[in-house]
Amino acid sequence: MGEFELIRRFFAAAPVRRARLGIGDDCALLADCPPGECLAVSTDLLLAGRHFFDDVDPASLGWKSLAVNLSDLAAMGAQPVGFTLALALPSVDEDWLGAFSRGLLDLAARHDCELLGGDTTRGPLAIGITIFGHVPPEQALRRDRGRAGDDLWVSGELGSAALAVRERLAGRALPAEHPARARLERPSPRVALGRSLLGLAHAAIDLSDGLLGDLGHLCERSGLGARIEWPRVPVAGHLAALPMRDRMALALAGGDDYELLFSAPRAARETISRLTGEGEGRPCRVGCLTSEAGIRVLAADGTPWATDEFSAFDHFR
Amino acid sequence: MGEFELIRRFFAAAPVRRARLGIGDDCALLADCPPGECLAVSTDLLLAGRHFFDDVDPASLGWKSLAVNLSDLAAMGAQPVGFTLALALPSVDEDWLGAFSRGLLDLAARHDCELLGGDTTRGPLAIGITIFGHVPPEQALRRDRGRAGDDLWVSGELGSAALAVRERLAGRALPAEHPARARLERPSPRVALGRSLLGLAHAAIDLSDGLLGDLGHLCERSGLGARIEWPRVPVAGHLAALPMRDRMALALAGGDDYELLFSAPRAARETISRLTGEGEGRPCRVGCLTSEAGIRVLAADGTPWATDEFSAFDHFR
Repeated sequence: MGEFELIRRFFAAAPVRRARLGIGDDCALLADCPPGECLAVSTDLLLAGRHFFDDVDPASLGWKSLAVNLSDLAAMGAQPVGFTLALALPSVDEDWLGAFSRGLLDLAARHDCELLGGDTTRGPLAIGITIFGHVPPEQALRRDRGRAGDDLWVSGELGSAALAVRERLAGRALPAEHPARARLERPSPRVALGRSLLGLAHAAIDLSDGLLGDLGHLCERSGLGARIEWPRVPVAGHLAALPMRDRMALALAGGDDYELLFSAPRAARETISRLTGEGEGRPCRVGCLTSEAGIRVLAADGTPWATDEFSAFDHFR
Repeated sequence: MGEFELIRRFFAAAPVRRARLGIGDDCALLADCPPGECLAVSTDLLLAGRHFFDDVDPASLGWKSLAVNLSDLAAMGAQPVGFTLALALPSVDEDWLGAFSRGLLDLAARHDCELLGGDTTRGPLAIGITIFGHVPPEQALRRDRGRAGDDLWVSGELGSAALAVRERLAGRALPAEHPARARLERPSPRVALGRSLLGLAHAAIDLSDGLLGDLGHLCERSGLGARIEWPRVPVAGHLAALPMRDRMALALAGGDDYELLFSAPRAARETISRLTGEGEGRPCRVGCLTSEAGIRVLAADGTPWATDEFSAFDHFR
């Protein structure tokens, strides 16, 4: 099977509906944004052995490759439109490609996000996705729009995906049916929640590197500090039996949660409490932004804890 | 140096001017297209050892990574706007990164094409670029718009880049100052030519896999065949001393030319002849599209040649 046959067979089954031109030309041509909205763009590159285990189920990998990009749109409050896929494959394995494209296109269909074009080549497994959405530019949930005194909210629960990674690295892989495996391998991007926060939230970021690390990015861009009340942090239920330090490490710095962290004025508190998000993604208030620099995590009695040990993931450190 | 410091230092020196929001958030936000135009998008993934030699000069690699994407915009008649960069690096080599980003941003500045965002990770060297431009959708130079009887045109000269690759693979690398090396390592995307063909040309494609292979794509999408008159093919001057079969192989199936192949009605012949393109990219009429299927290459006396041996490059064959 050649490059063009591969694309036709696994990725270009249906013509695009919304875009003006999809796969098969030098460029795809996008439809216009709705009036008053502009195009939001994000890109991610996933590599075998770094972003996922080499033996990951290919359908889950297809799902997750798109999910992490949809999560970036969600964190901006953008409505998904379409994506491009650049794929390096060590060989043409039809079973693998069938499962990968099924997982990818399944999630794409759920978010009405069209595959617009791509590039395939032979090489060590790598998946590069660039995703497009639209958002009203004045309401976009930028990282630099937080204000001192804003409540801080987190959607869903934290720490499950990091638990699954930790157990696997320790040679005690959780069984495939364990809910933490699903959270790691098939995260649910909070697209509807992000969209519903337009006009309510000031700033947002998605949690890929861990709560404290990503909060650090939001604080830095907004020129603020933050206070997190540890008892309010929505730690995943199946971390309950772990020692306290482990729960903190996984929930505060674990990464791979793909939940939303956002700041909003107190006046929006009641409205946000009623937002259910998708499925289990209900937002939970965890602290506030402060004019004082630095991030403090407070125990139940208000004592601040040292958080230096919970540093965010950095690909080059 | 961490991931964020790396981005700041080498890639985010200047804020975006045209886009609403650039590097540093979950998404970039693009400016609106000019009235009557829509967004054109293309993506390419370049891997070490496959798309370029491991020891390539990093400044040239940065240039070429963007050039192949700009060439896709040119082939659609689109005006460049911006691009995202996904970069996997085996290590943080500041000299390498400095040269790579210089080459990349130099070409970007020449085409007023902004770096909008990206993703960096550690891994085998890989460069994924997604590029954006705008084009009037009704005039876009789609591959499927060719008509029987259209003239076929090629910009510039063919075969130089393939010569440089062939000599290198044969252990006889051309000296760095040889013009074929520049054609391979620093191709000139024909952006202004593509733009000037709007309203003149019917269909276009850029030459990345070789004239016959890319003509095959254009013919397939347009449901037509083609005739190429070999004496009209603009074979690069420094191929003159090679045997006939070598000249044909390099010019008809060599790849990496990044020239434009386009079809246009006879009525546009005079106007197109006067287009100079950028520098040495002047278009040259090489044949025509035919209602009869198949691609024939005719010798000076009109005899058709078998062209089966000049197959296009395919990453999975």
